[in-house]
Amino acid sequence: MMKGLSVMTPTTRKMMQVLNSCKATLFCVLVTILVLRSTAMVSDHHIGDIEGTTEWAHVGQNRHGRKLAQADEVNISEKPDPVTASKFVEEEKWDPSTPYTLGPKISNWDQQRVIWNNLNPGKNKTRNGKPKILLVSGSQPGPCANPMGDFYHLKFVKNRLDYARLHGLEFFYNMATFSKEMTSFWAKLPLLRKLMVSHPEVEWIWWMDSDAIFTDMAFEMPMEKYEGKNLVVHGFHNLLFEQHRWIGLNTGIFLIRNCQWSLDLLDAWAPFGPEGETRVNAGKMLTAKLVERPTFEADDQSALVYLMLFDDPKWKLKTHIEWEFYLHGYWKYLVYRWSELSILQTTKCWKSMAMPTGLWHHSRRNAFARTPLTH
Amino acid sequence: MMKGLSVMTPTTRKMMQVLNSCKATLFCVLVTILVLRSTAMVSDHHIGDIEGTTEWAHVGQNRHGRKLAQADEVNISEKPDPVTASKFVEEEKWDPSTPYTLGPKISNWDQQRVIWNNLNPGKNKTRNGKPKILLVSGSQPGPCANPMGDFYHLKFVKNRLDYARLHGLEFFYNMATFSKEMTSFWAKLPLLRKLMVSHPEVEWIWWMDSDAIFTDMAFEMPMEKYEGKNLVVHGFHNLLFEQHRWIGLNTGIFLIRNCQWSLDLLDAWAPFGPEGETRVNAGKMLTAKLVERPTFEADDQSALVYLMLFDDPKWKLKTHIEWEFYLHGYWKYLVYRWSELSILQTTKCWKSMAMPTGLWHHSRRNAFARTPLTH
Repeated sequence: MMKGLSVMTPTTRKMMQVLNSCKATLFCVLVTILVLRSTAMVSDHHIGDIEGTTEWAHVGQNRHGRKLAQADEVNISEKPDPVTASKFVEEEKWDPSTPYTLGPKISNWDQQRVIWNNLNPGKNKTRNGKPKILLVSGSQPGPCANPMGDFYHLKFVKNRLDYARLHGLEFFYNMATFSKEMTSFWAKLPLLRKLMVSHPEVEWIWWMDSDAIFTDMAFEMPMEKYEGKNLVVHGFHNLLFEQHRWIGLNTGIFLIRNCQWSLDLLDAWAPFGPEGETRVNAGKMLTAKLVERPTFEADDQSALVYLMLFDDPKWKLKTHIEWEFYLHGYWKYLVYRWSELSILQTTKCWKSMAMPTGLWHHSRRNAFARTPLTH
Repeated sequence: MMKGLSVMTPTTRKMMQVLNSCKATLFCVLVTILVLRSTAMVSDHHIGDIEGTTEWAHVGQNRHGRKLAQADEVNISEKPDPVTASKFVEEEKWDPSTPYTLGPKISNWDQQRVIWNNLNPGKNKTRNGKPKILLVSGSQPGPCANPMGDFYHLKFVKNRLDYARLHGLEFFYNMATFSKEMTSFWAKLPLLRKLMVSHPEVEWIWWMDSDAIFTDMAFEMPMEKYEGKNLVVHGFHNLLFEQHRWIGLNTGIFLIRNCQWSLDLLDAWAPFGPEGETRVNAGKMLTAKLVERPTFEADDQSALVYLMLFDDPKWKLKTHIEWEFYLHGYWKYLVYRWSELSILQTTKCWKSMAMPTGLWHHSRRNAFARTPLTH
């Protein structure tokens, strides 16, 4: 099958032999280049200057055109400028004596979005005239430790991809860590901010943890319910606001509006997250304040519960706690009632019971004490 | 972290314990159900009756509405009808004494597509008014034998997904085998037919093997070149038409138009493929007819080369053999010249040299004797 090689010159063949002997290394280098390239696609070089609307006004109507223009800019100079180069070498060092931030403060995002969307009419709507939703999920940059892990990641990506195509959502899958401080469950925060400011045309970002899947491919989110709200998250009012339980809501799956409020929420949320002493200490505080929270470092879910209960009341005001259907459900309970749910669906009872079982979630963090099913 | 369980009733807790003891089994059952569900999404119950346009006329304007209507139909009857049930149990048995077919003969597909697209105006165009392209790829239903395999499948899916989003393509990833005869490199044939007849709005299907990736995310296919052609495949005229080499073209990556010609090509192509004696004998014939083909069972690439050279001249007439850029390239040669290519791109020489290095291919079958790079 390699016969085609025989017409090469001897020099070429010799070089090919050398190449073959270290092809594994070269393969790794190539993959690294490709990963860096695709990471670079997401980043936006306007991000450092996000306050100024002047630059935004120059952005062409066509996003693709913009990307090509950026690529050309890089090509024109003979080597990448120091800012671009530094992105691949080292990020700005965070001083742990100051609160951690996700980037320069942005304070006029709503106005900037209005300007951008006026300059790019129609870009913020789907073909059916609905506000654009970007489904976002991701997994770690390296292989999964569980030998079956990446096979399930692959199947789960297919699940999201099929759902997104059927419902006219755009879908972004992330495999990069954007900040060395924001690891583990905190990795989504810098990603969400980056996607918001790179995609002013997107109205909602729908986050989904890597271990969650859609169980009902025909399920449509009732977006009209969420007008005036900026965050939609599954939870229970009594567990959250009365009992102060750390599992009163679940951050495995949520929708967040692309707006100033959300950027502010991310800014308030992020300081709990930096890996190391900060996260450990924040974890102690959260365990002390929230009911039945085990002792462990700060997680994004507990931090959001804390913000809802003890921080600025504006967070609670603009958040919709969804409990009328399973925006997510812990898989053990869904499997346990699976046959019953199937029957309910067949006899159409589920409609009156408001249980379309939209999503299915694998994480142990999603153990609920009580759900509408066990009432 | 599982503290939330404590408020359950003792009976529930007991049942949970039983459940826990066999959770692995239940997990498998659930996954099986989900796989069957998502497989069912792809299938189209009109497929057995594809000749009749009557049914098509009833198809609503909204594809999503159609799917929901189908789901309702299934729900109304208390158990699935025998046709639906048989899909999951056994497929129609093929009699090896007759030529293998992909399904009932379809002879008026072009007219059917015109009718469908007239009934559903605008559905066959992208937002930018271009004919719709569906990018299609896939991998085997089970885990990859190589422990790193599924991690690379995952990264490669991300690569396609990013490319598809940036270029306004729809993307379908397949993990099902549609016919037990058409395994290995032949699995794409029944899939392509199924997608064509299920998606009359799609003009082109862009097939990509699981081991290929896009190396240039800004690369745009020059579709205007292919007007009047129904198949675009990478290859070289001299290797193919003069030398009759089995590597004269490459079927790892190709574009095929959704039309009657393509369904006919699939019909002519498929009989080489059924696993077992048929495929082995076809392999012997192909090795005898094609130059430098090693002895092995029939592969889809050799069979297509055979059709181009020795079958109906209409196949060659409507095929564009692309050689002006790398619609695909064998990875060893691309890695070998990688630094040079990068320099070429930086200095913009590549434009005049017509080498955007569109795609990168991993399969050993893609070893080319000569490429524009080695001229």
